[in-house]
Amino acid sequence: MASIGTTMMFGREANSLGTLRIKSTAFSLSPSGGVLLLQANLRATSMKVSQTTLNVTGEKQLKILDRREKEFDLIADTFVLGKVEKDSRIFSENYTIRSYDMGPNHAATIQTLMNLLQETVLGHFRSMGIMKDGLGSTPEMSAKNLIWILSKTHVVVDRYPTWNDVVRVETWFIPSGKNFLGIEWIIYDSKTEQILTRASSKLMMMNKETRKLSEWPEGVRREFEPQFIDSLLLDKDNSRLPKLDHSKMEFVRNGLTPRWNDLDINQHVNNVKYVGMMLESVPISFLESHEIYDITMEYRRECAMDDVLQSLTSFCHETTDQCFHLLRAECGAVVVRGKTKWRPKHAKN
Amino acid sequence: MASIGTTMMFGREANSLGTLRIKSTAFSLSPSGGVLLLQANLRATSMKVSQTTLNVTGEKQLKILDRREKEFDLIADTFVLGKVEKDSRIFSENYTIRSYDMGPNHAATIQTLMNLLQETVLGHFRSMGIMKDGLGSTPEMSAKNLIWILSKTHVVVDRYPTWNDVVRVETWFIPSGKNFLGIEWIIYDSKTEQILTRASSKLMMMNKETRKLSEWPEGVRREFEPQFIDSLLLDKDNSRLPKLDHSKMEFVRNGLTPRWNDLDINQHVNNVKYVGMMLESVPISFLESHEIYDITMEYRRECAMDDVLQSLTSFCHETTDQCFHLLRAECGAVVVRGKTKWRPKHAKN
Repeated sequence: MASIGTTMMFGREANSLGTLRIKSTAFSLSPSGGVLLLQANLRATSMKVSQTTLNVTGEKQLKILDRREKEFDLIADTFVLGKVEKDSRIFSENYTIRSYDMGPNHAATIQTLMNLLQETVLGHFRSMGIMKDGLGSTPEMSAKNLIWILSKTHVVVDRYPTWNDVVRVETWFIPSGKNFLGIEWIIYDSKTEQILTRASSKLMMMNKETRKLSEWPEGVRREFEPQFIDSLLLDKDNSRLPKLDHSKMEFVRNGLTPRWNDLDINQHVNNVKYVGMMLESVPISFLESHEIYDITMEYRRECAMDDVLQSLTSFCHETTDQCFHLLRAECGAVVVRGKTKWRPKHAKN
Repeated sequence: MASIGTTMMFGREANSLGTLRIKSTAFSLSPSGGVLLLQANLRATSMKVSQTTLNVTGEKQLKILDRREKEFDLIADTFVLGKVEKDSRIFSENYTIRSYDMGPNHAATIQTLMNLLQETVLGHFRSMGIMKDGLGSTPEMSAKNLIWILSKTHVVVDRYPTWNDVVRVETWFIPSGKNFLGIEWIIYDSKTEQILTRASSKLMMMNKETRKLSEWPEGVRREFEPQFIDSLLLDKDNSRLPKLDHSKMEFVRNGLTPRWNDLDINQHVNNVKYVGMMLESVPISFLESHEIYDITMEYRRECAMDDVLQSLTSFCHETTDQCFHLLRAECGAVVVRGKTKWRPKHAKN
């Protein structure tokens, strides 16, 4: 391995950008005579929220930089179906952004990015040899009829990749309290090594038959512990979303029904598809002029093909770039609670 | 190039498969000491239609076989973004099937396959250097304000690929009468070289401002002619779909509205998304027990975000495995006319 000359610089440039303020943290890295610029842009609204979420933690950044060099040979490696790097327990996979991954914004959609996160963590499960049921259940979980369910996802988008961009998604497992499996991801532009997206999720265990949540059996903990690493991302927006009163929400879209194609291999609506339905109640004029840069989804209940859903959105009173969302079944049960933050389209990071 | 020993065998095994009958045409090919089996399964219903559609034409099959050998090095080449092979004017690109490409059938959806066709032909346009507007307009077309619009697509699926399968999509342009650009595709399983899907489309030219169809200007013909090759697929089901009386259709689904995420970069509903809306009127019990093996779409009218659509389906009276479909705007205008053929799920090809 060639030696790495690392220069580190913490910047705190307070650029004004519409209603947003930007702080940037930049690292320059010079491996093997080349020069890479790794930028972790941290966004904060100019209003109440002083700093956004999912910052790459300072003391862990060198680990990420160290890995860069090992991965230069990964670009031609798509069909290897991802790689676990030696000693790092970090799983990595490359993807090309396709025309059908893009939406009306001429860039990948937030759903595309969330699909890539999902695909990469499934690849990680597979690399651990626990994909028997297609959902990453360990032998101990299968014996106890337990499956993973998604509890929460938080995604921060620095920049959306566009058609033909190649991105590298890295993921790893972190301990996350007594009853959760924590997952973190970073999506890089594989050409520039720039960070495009940072994300974290929490999974819980559910009994497949009773559909009730379960504590982690000790055996499962033993199976996962060798995989854990410390968190590399610092999620400063880790509180639970507030309970929302549906009768006071500003924008309502009724009668949303999952399409056959929204169902996953378990014949349930795929987690990522909820995003599209949640955004159905956001006014079109706002969708046309803004893009999401931060999204939090709390999954509350499963949804099947015959559910009819109601999508509700309210703008936050303190800051116009933030929305709260509810996706409810007709019976009133909350399926998803969400929060999104938006920036004007074509705003630079 | 190593010499190729080619053994060719035309088989006519009439296997019974539910309501379908199968004829198979098999070629064995032994390049570079290895053995590949290239199977072109031709399906025909046991009823009126004696032979289905999109057969690989006999006299052209050797051309395809000849190409196999040149492409053994393409599998690691995803990020090269497709290749035009020397002297062949055939463009080729590899894709890995992802978890989010799959539907409730535990395999890639018909929409996924159609997305891959679209992506590959866009790659072909780009390889010709005519992707300035993102839609494959030549300089001559841009000067005259002309854009391509999709007129018809016909896809025959021998086998749906599944998660982590790597497929190679090949595409080429063919002459198609006075006012059409013909496109053909074959999707191969890149590991076995088995043909998975054959497809053809016709594009027309439309004036971007007036939205009226246009004849091919002579200059555009000159631009495309060097790209044309003779058809490699023989489409025996090339007649226009019958006009359907919406008042006599059996199954109706009203109030379908495009989602924001259904829009493409031109803020119109993407051609592939119509398939999902068209299938919304097919009874769920049929969707659960059958899969499409043949789909024809005739595109009649553009559709925008504020259109409310009605999806209608009727089963063909002569054969229960065939459906006709209409997608209509509320004003009554036909957006898409469609025909699908279905086989029981888990039926072998």
